[in-house]
Amino acid sequence: MRDVAVVGIGIMKWGELWEKSFRDIFTEAGLNAIDDAGVDHIDSLLVGCMSGGLFVGQEHIGAIMADYLGQKHIAAGRVESACASGGLAFRQAFIEVASGMSDIVMAGGVEKMTDVSGDGATYALATAADQEYEVFNGVTFPGLYAMMARIYMQKYKVTRRELSAIPFKSHQNGAKNPYAQYPFPIKIEDVENGVLVADPLHILDCSPITDGGAAVILTTVDIAKKLKKPIIKVIGSGLATDTISLHQRDNMIWLKSTELAGKKAYEMAGKKPEDIDLVEVHDCFSIAEALVTEALGFFKPGTGVKAAAEGLTALNGKLPVNTSGGLKSKGHPVGATGIGQVVEIVKQLRGTAENGRQVKKARVGMTQNMGGSGASGVVHIMEVV
Amino acid sequence: MRDVAVVGIGIMKWGELWEKSFRDIFTEAGLNAIDDAGVDHIDSLLVGCMSGGLFVGQEHIGAIMADYLGQKHIAAGRVESACASGGLAFRQAFIEVASGMSDIVMAGGVEKMTDVSGDGATYALATAADQEYEVFNGVTFPGLYAMMARIYMQKYKVTRRELSAIPFKSHQNGAKNPYAQYPFPIKIEDVENGVLVADPLHILDCSPITDGGAAVILTTVDIAKKLKKPIIKVIGSGLATDTISLHQRDNMIWLKSTELAGKKAYEMAGKKPEDIDLVEVHDCFSIAEALVTEALGFFKPGTGVKAAAEGLTALNGKLPVNTSGGLKSKGHPVGATGIGQVVEIVKQLRGTAENGRQVKKARVGMTQNMGGSGASGVVHIMEVV
Repeated sequence: MRDVAVVGIGIMKWGELWEKSFRDIFTEAGLNAIDDAGVDHIDSLLVGCMSGGLFVGQEHIGAIMADYLGQKHIAAGRVESACASGGLAFRQAFIEVASGMSDIVMAGGVEKMTDVSGDGATYALATAADQEYEVFNGVTFPGLYAMMARIYMQKYKVTRRELSAIPFKSHQNGAKNPYAQYPFPIKIEDVENGVLVADPLHILDCSPITDGGAAVILTTVDIAKKLKKPIIKVIGSGLATDTISLHQRDNMIWLKSTELAGKKAYEMAGKKPEDIDLVEVHDCFSIAEALVTEALGFFKPGTGVKAAAEGLTALNGKLPVNTSGGLKSKGHPVGATGIGQVVEIVKQLRGTAENGRQVKKARVGMTQNMGGSGASGVVHIMEVV
Repeated sequence: MRDVAVVGIGIMKWGELWEKSFRDIFTEAGLNAIDDAGVDHIDSLLVGCMSGGLFVGQEHIGAIMADYLGQKHIAAGRVESACASGGLAFRQAFIEVASGMSDIVMAGGVEKMTDVSGDGATYALATAADQEYEVFNGVTFPGLYAMMARIYMQKYKVTRRELSAIPFKSHQNGAKNPYAQYPFPIKIEDVENGVLVADPLHILDCSPITDGGAAVILTTVDIAKKLKKPIIKVIGSGLATDTISLHQRDNMIWLKSTELAGKKAYEMAGKKPEDIDLVEVHDCFSIAEALVTEALGFFKPGTGVKAAAEGLTALNGKLPVNTSGGLKSKGHPVGATGIGQVVEIVKQLRGTAENGRQVKKARVGMTQNMGGSGASGVVHIMEVV
């Protein structure tokens, strides 16, 4: 396999983008990535998108985005793994460059979630769960993660206030991210005082509905050297799955797919949890962030929430988690989220994170993107060369 | 890149499968492929599906199918390129094995199209076109291909009866395929006497709405030798795109994406059109088959329909096209179609095509899968080793 590096990143302000269409959003992010990389073309495009069909009535997403990027005739396709679609796009692009099939590949992600009316977004998101055994019976994602939070809090004697430390920290970081949907700090008591969504989860425990796109350019390390860009090498990639429905797992509060994806990525990279300087994880709900940091081996089972409450995951903590603001503050345009994570890690490893959220001496970064209630987990490790 | 072979194929009877669910359909095909390959596991799964969201309310298709195949925890994802989703899955699986990332990869495809009511299927299929500039203005796929047929017939002075030769031939072949949705011959005059769908296309010019799945297993040639299976090596792969909307192309009756994908595949394989013994092409409408055979260099522009009318593409012709019955007779479960094409070519190259449709001395076969009105084209060349 050839050595692969990320040489370009493109992001845009995420939020409720009423004046931009699905294709506008991706094109803006994609052109930013091409510009940042300094390349005059791409050979191939892989776009992560969860449900173009249900959100905007548009499938065939690879071809349309290649066309609107001014890159028609290139190889292009769309990949999907629910909310881990961006992470999957990054992995497939990494494999394509590593294989020798293509030299310069864009991995992108996009979702336009606000154009559906009524409960359209809830319905679309629920297609990441088991339609026949979960959704049909009325479960939504806040409900699934609420069950996980309830079990966790009872088993490990975790308080409501401790759980609030996670979104509190996310908003501390997101306030420093100019591209975040909600770039402002919150008070810790705001979480428990917010609207109850699915007990014990309140509104500030939940990632929002977001329009947004992101894109990165991958190429060989050899080509990266010629481009004279900072070389952020992709040194580990893992993808794993679990049962689609939560109730079929042996342990409802252990993210096996993330554990296994992490193990693969660590092994490929020759790294251990203690080698990771910072990580972007999939905090679709506050409990998820804790479960992920445990599954990746950063904290022991049952200690993830307490670690956050003790400040270990803060910007100046032992392991900064979600310096971008995470899904909670930065926003969660589902197909774009996994690529947005890579954008943040590359910024950090380049030393270019904005507004004082730069992590000092950041050399090895990780991303973890997740689909559904954890039926898919994608983990990547990057190192500045 | 490592040498890659197809060592297992799985198909099932396609049609209106009222008693089988989305996951049942794919699982049946996938288990058949595992059984045929004689492997005890797969490392990775890529499923082609056009719109699980709109057809059955289920996305996250890689994870759910891995789970139901009894392969939970493996790497799994879904790819989409409208009706070329199956071809894209095959290409991504080929790249994954070639790269060294995974040794045994299943490429599958599935669509359950009959569970939507009213104009649901027409709406879902239209998401392969340009939602904002084509679909919004009322164009459907029969309409787009009807425009192509009208231009072609006028420019090249092709008659209605000549065009009918294509579906006539498809049903001749499909009648010999036990897995086809419509496994019966038709009379040539049946086409012009059938219901008019979009002038000049009648019902028998159009591929049907189909439920179906298909799967194949790819691995390295080295592992294939140990499995003691016939080795069908993948020697060429090409993927290319064009403008999403038909009206933006320089020439509305030239499939540039297929031409470019074909050129890449020929070049990688070191083959020319005259080296191909048989081909499965994307005859979503009868005119499409002619346009594809021209874009792939088998016949000169404007001669594709006449070639079919003269019998050159028949089972015993110079270049057998769609020995499976094609999308027309075999059915067109959109995400599965590209994998179904590979199944047919592997059967032919193994010498195991059923019911007297075996092509003699078939050593090199090609598949061409297409998305939308030709915004995506995927071409593969396989050779028996």
